[in-house]
Amino acid sequence: MAWNITRKDINKDKLLLNESLFAIGNGYIGVRGNFEEGYGDAHPSIRGTYINAFHDESKISYGEKLAGFPESQQKMLNVIEAQTIKLLIDGEELSLFDGEVIDYEQSLHFKEGYFKRKFHWRSPAGKEILVTIRRMTSFVRKELFAIEYFMEPLSHIDELTILSTIDGDVSNFVDDNDPRVASGHAKYLSVTDIKQEEELNMIISETQQSKLSVACVSSTELALANYDKEVHLSGTSIEEKYTVLFNKPVLFTKRNIYTDTLRHGDQLDKKGKSLHRQAKEKSFSELLEEQHSYLNEYWDTADIYIKGDPELQEGIRFNLFQLLQSVGKDSVSNIAAKGLSGEGYEGHYFWDSEIYIFPIFLMTNHEIARSLLLQRYSLLDSARERAKEVGHTKGALFPWRTITGKESSAFFPAGTAQYHISADIAYSYIKYFLVTNDMSFMEDYGAEVLFETARLWLDTGHFYQGTFRIDDVTGPDEYTCIVNNNYYTNAMAKYNLEWAAKIYNLLKENNKLSQLIKKIDLKEDEVADWARASEQMFLPYDEELGINAQDDTFLQKKVWDLKNTPKEKFPLLLHYHPLTLYRYQVCKQADTVLAHFLLDGISDMETVKNSYDYYEKVTTHDSSLSHCAFSVMASKLGYSEKAYKHFSDTARLDLNNLHGNTKDGLHMASMGGTWLAIVYGFAGLRIKESGLSFTPTLPQEWEALKFKIQYQQRLLMIELHSDTVTYTLEKGADLVIKHYDEEITLKTEQKTALEYHQSPMV
Amino acid sequence: MAWNITRKDINKDKLLLNESLFAIGNGYIGVRGNFEEGYGDAHPSIRGTYINAFHDESKISYGEKLAGFPESQQKMLNVIEAQTIKLLIDGEELSLFDGEVIDYEQSLHFKEGYFKRKFHWRSPAGKEILVTIRRMTSFVRKELFAIEYFMEPLSHIDELTILSTIDGDVSNFVDDNDPRVASGHAKYLSVTDIKQEEELNMIISETQQSKLSVACVSSTELALANYDKEVHLSGTSIEEKYTVLFNKPVLFTKRNIYTDTLRHGDQLDKKGKSLHRQAKEKSFSELLEEQHSYLNEYWDTADIYIKGDPELQEGIRFNLFQLLQSVGKDSVSNIAAKGLSGEGYEGHYFWDSEIYIFPIFLMTNHEIARSLLLQRYSLLDSARERAKEVGHTKGALFPWRTITGKESSAFFPAGTAQYHISADIAYSYIKYFLVTNDMSFMEDYGAEVLFETARLWLDTGHFYQGTFRIDDVTGPDEYTCIVNNNYYTNAMAKYNLEWAAKIYNLLKENNKLSQLIKKIDLKEDEVADWARASEQMFLPYDEELGINAQDDTFLQKKVWDLKNTPKEKFPLLLHYHPLTLYRYQVCKQADTVLAHFLLDGISDMETVKNSYDYYEKVTTHDSSLSHCAFSVMASKLGYSEKAYKHFSDTARLDLNNLHGNTKDGLHMASMGGTWLAIVYGFAGLRIKESGLSFTPTLPQEWEALKFKIQYQQRLLMIELHSDTVTYTLEKGADLVIKHYDEEITLKTEQKTALEYHQSPMV
Repeated sequence: MAWNITRKDINKDKLLLNESLFAIGNGYIGVRGNFEEGYGDAHPSIRGTYINAFHDESKISYGEKLAGFPESQQKMLNVIEAQTIKLLIDGEELSLFDGEVIDYEQSLHFKEGYFKRKFHWRSPAGKEILVTIRRMTSFVRKELFAIEYFMEPLSHIDELTILSTIDGDVSNFVDDNDPRVASGHAKYLSVTDIKQEEELNMIISETQQSKLSVACVSSTELALANYDKEVHLSGTSIEEKYTVLFNKPVLFTKRNIYTDTLRHGDQLDKKGKSLHRQAKEKSFSELLEEQHSYLNEYWDTADIYIKGDPELQEGIRFNLFQLLQSVGKDSVSNIAAKGLSGEGYEGHYFWDSEIYIFPIFLMTNHEIARSLLLQRYSLLDSARERAKEVGHTKGALFPWRTITGKESSAFFPAGTAQYHISADIAYSYIKYFLVTNDMSFMEDYGAEVLFETARLWLDTGHFYQGTFRIDDVTGPDEYTCIVNNNYYTNAMAKYNLEWAAKIYNLLKENNKLSQLIKKIDLKEDEVADWARASEQMFLPYDEELGINAQDDTFLQKKVWDLKNTPKEKFPLLLHYHPLTLYRYQVCKQADTVLAHFLLDGISDMETVKNSYDYYEKVTTHDSSLSHCAFSVMASKLGYSEKAYKHFSDTARLDLNNLHGNTKDGLHMASMGGTWLAIVYGFAGLRIKESGLSFTPTLPQEWEALKFKIQYQQRLLMIELHSDTVTYTLEKGADLVIKHYDEEITLKTEQKTALEYHQSPMV
Repeated sequence: MAWNITRKDINKDKLLLNESLFAIGNGYIGVRGNFEEGYGDAHPSIRGTYINAFHDESKISYGEKLAGFPESQQKMLNVIEAQTIKLLIDGEELSLFDGEVIDYEQSLHFKEGYFKRKFHWRSPAGKEILVTIRRMTSFVRKELFAIEYFMEPLSHIDELTILSTIDGDVSNFVDDNDPRVASGHAKYLSVTDIKQEEELNMIISETQQSKLSVACVSSTELALANYDKEVHLSGTSIEEKYTVLFNKPVLFTKRNIYTDTLRHGDQLDKKGKSLHRQAKEKSFSELLEEQHSYLNEYWDTADIYIKGDPELQEGIRFNLFQLLQSVGKDSVSNIAAKGLSGEGYEGHYFWDSEIYIFPIFLMTNHEIARSLLLQRYSLLDSARERAKEVGHTKGALFPWRTITGKESSAFFPAGTAQYHISADIAYSYIKYFLVTNDMSFMEDYGAEVLFETARLWLDTGHFYQGTFRIDDVTGPDEYTCIVNNNYYTNAMAKYNLEWAAKIYNLLKENNKLSQLIKKIDLKEDEVADWARASEQMFLPYDEELGINAQDDTFLQKKVWDLKNTPKEKFPLLLHYHPLTLYRYQVCKQADTVLAHFLLDGISDMETVKNSYDYYEKVTTHDSSLSHCAFSVMASKLGYSEKAYKHFSDTARLDLNNLHGNTKDGLHMASMGGTWLAIVYGFAGLRIKESGLSFTPTLPQEWEALKFKIQYQQRLLMIELHSDTVTYTLEKGADLVIKHYDEEITLKTEQKTALEYHQSPMV
């Protein structure tokens, strides 16, 4: 039923890959799927435990530093290591790269929420042992990372030694030659306190620049009456050594509580101990029960069921599970590009959050969605400051990549220049409003974000010959940088401006609004300008091709000869100077096509279709954010085969390591894209002021598709079969939706089954 | 008569500035105008001795490193220090910041070629001394840097101690916060050998990466029968200590010979000793005689005489002297942006060489001009390699900044993207050909440069709707980067392509050409494409404004509000993020206007005038390369006041420290620009296939202007008075020139006086 992924051997070439795939996390802590005992020196490992948003700042080195370039970069840190548990049987150290592995299985369980390894090992001296390890990071107790060892002797063994360590001497991973992972030095944390008291091991470490602290409060427990125990404290680590008579199975449990300054203030140790005490009251199995029940609730709404394709089913559930594991659930954290599964992109939050991932939570879990928006709201002051730094007189410029709000992009043409992120964030507030109808949230947070981003557009663009134009920005396509009137940017800014004016007029007489107006010194004139800029927004259109041009001059450039570019030259960004890429019609990812998806109806279908046809030919999909947008739009256009092809390229991107860099972490946006390709693509969901609409088309390869969404206090289930769709309003009041061009009223707790025709368009 | 600059006091705030202004050099070595005895700890100093092109490589750090970004950067090094001479009178160390300076004068002599300091000093204990110091770097013996001390006791002094040092423990200057000077670490040289033998002190040092060596062979000489002498060798320095009875004047001479791997191969010490032996045969005064006679020859052709403005006269001679001091005269060196007077721009060669400085030598000293071209020719292989690196299939892409050919720009939007440098270099070969008629040089070197650069343009641009277009490059104006169809670039490329085809057809049947064709595998088709691309080159023109647009979209952008930009915000590049600058119509420097100057006749006069008027309003002249181009074109257009104003802003730019950063070195291109503003501006010289032409207009502020130029085995003197110009053909066969629209035949050794009218145009 595809509720887990399993590996039955140890493929040495895939150790790093599997560390990412088998990562566990809960949005707060993430732990890579490392082996507790390590690989010895035989193989490289990226051994990591991360706390979402827990970061330090490191100085950025520039060959030439210009005005407004960020001085420093934030970086999610590898925190205190608590995974390590080593076993010795009669003095021989267990290593799966020595002796013989007779049976092996590792599995990640989506419904139960744990990672398990079970193996039968024969030592070089011939001793045999069966070990079952389960580890979890609790969704219910976010600070908890627990490990359980169950060890059975399978031959005569006198003595079992268990060495369990927590270690504050940790570094981040670096690779100077890959722009997608960090370079430079790697050690940011120093131990400021280390102690053992009342059977608790505790390390507190502090960062160099951000002066944040993290504590790990850890204990171990051996379910035996008799054992020897020694404790060894060094300056940075605590090791516990248990020695037991190994004539029967032994159960060993390690509970680690992580607290940090961002969530727990100053008294990390006190809070850590208290949380630890509570966790200690539960056995590992009881902790797993809590986990299971949390996950049951998640899956109940979020699951996507596919009949007829177990591989894709596995891919989708894996993605949905990893997204839940990675997404921040408190207002100081968001979802990093690689979640908590690795260090690629340094734990930064990008537009990926809003455009690729937010929709899932928006439609299945309002609480998480709201928390994501609150995190962005907390960056608003930084964004206002950043706007000033680069030379704007007004508005908020959200950083292209950041953790707590400071721009951390060291390459502005594909970083700061991606102004669209400000519109992307505004977009998520608008969609949240449409889905939840939560006017109070709009008043408290959304309006300010919409107004300040609208101001940014006014200050960035200008009126020219009856149009509003935005010069020198970069759109989503990073192979075409610093252009005028990027279609995506202009279209999203138009929406941003329109809604800023709309919300202003809606809330005009409202008391909270007048406070906000005072706070940000907003003038009525400005709002009129927003409306005018939105109306007059210049959206490039090419008469001859009948498409929206990606920017003012994209279509005048040479077309890159993709057919004759050797395979090993992809991704192009690793092989061609950016200027060379910029000079051609070649796209890293969906740009205009993405705008056509997000802003349904902005262009007529003929233009949308022509644009899709045109851009598909010049797009490399070198970005993992691309296929899903093409899949959605292929569905829309009735290109069912293409829709399916683009979808399947994204659904198992990490599981099949299609980009070759999953070792650095999972591609969260692509995972979110899977969901988009299904819900917005195959089912054709769109959310507008006028309500929900669907244009379902089930891929021929499948027998059925089923998923649920939440909408304005309702829960809907949508089931697609080859020619029929069934809408079930599981909860909430009657709702009028659009099914293709037809208005349908869904009745509370009733099913509505409708026929449809595949490929409506082409 | 303004043949020197003089300072009669020690202004502590101008010490660093004066170090640059009083720098001496000969194109090979340069020594900043530091005080031999130093400033003590009281004041910062940039103490430097440089050898043109002598460099190391340092790794470039990037926050994000993309494909084709240079790994490392070349950097001209501060080499072995040999300036230091300290005096003690009766044990008191002479420092001009202690005791009392009764009289002081320092002067740089343009005709004699030395730097002199003369001062009367009273020590804290009341002892008085008169010291006269002269130093020179010989134009005749390029390896020689000599210092002469003449010391007279003016009160009773028993003992004079002279401490003379050579020191291998040297570093470069760094400033992390100014993109115009180096950042990062600063120590590149390590002493590999240090010894004293036969009264010679010798240090050999080696660089870390480039593995170049430099030797300093030094000796001192005291013109006295009796003295005590001690020598002290440390691991990196040699100090000589002379103690003498100070009852009469003492003459002390120090001769330092610098040899390096680039010019002297392996046997640096042997060559150094031999050169030193030769230098030792001459007294300091004899060395100065050689110097004087070399300079007489230089000034005989190069001098520009202005009657009626001593300040500007001083400025111009200063510039011409410093240019000669800085320009490389061997085929491994060129002229660095700051010459040999400081470390700004790290000793790199830019397009400054070709466009701003080369013309002076082209018209006054063919030997130097030829040597500059040979140096560029030696970079051709690197340029071919660089073209491949960034993704071209053919052609040569000259690096934006380099010493020996490797791209050393760490910021590509205003670095590598300035493709025009390849056309600028080609341009200088064409002009050399027109001025010298040297077909053999064209065959041996010029043709290959023209062909490979023409290939670059074909590979960079493309044919589109009947035009040839060049996308994603940066023109001279660094406030507008990465644009399509930059007017300057396209216009220069057009000329490049036209001449490549022309030279090919001219040499078609030639034997050397067929070797070249084989060598670079040139096809006849390519040449046809060059001609076609040149003919069809797209040159942006705006119908409404009647001007050439700087690029495809420049004129659609917002106009920067220069009037309301506070003074302290200039130069803008230090205060605004590049994206903000790119988004506006605001220019750092002449771009289209420069093209109109260099490619006389490319646009009709109406367009040229409109363009000048338009761009002048949006140009900040934040680059020191700007005013001179505006001055030239103002002259052309009859804007005499503007021409004079722009000229005077450039002629004393360093003397008046107008950009505030002369401490980092002199602005060589601006100095060259002074000459351009006079010869191409006021005198209106143009050099075309059809010959020379002049459109003289003397500034009202002056009574007369006089200068000489060489042209096709001839020497011409041009004298301007308020209404007349006199052309004298001092040497060579009769010549037809154009004086305004009139064809005039100049007769050998005859004067031709003609009347003209000021302000012919406006």
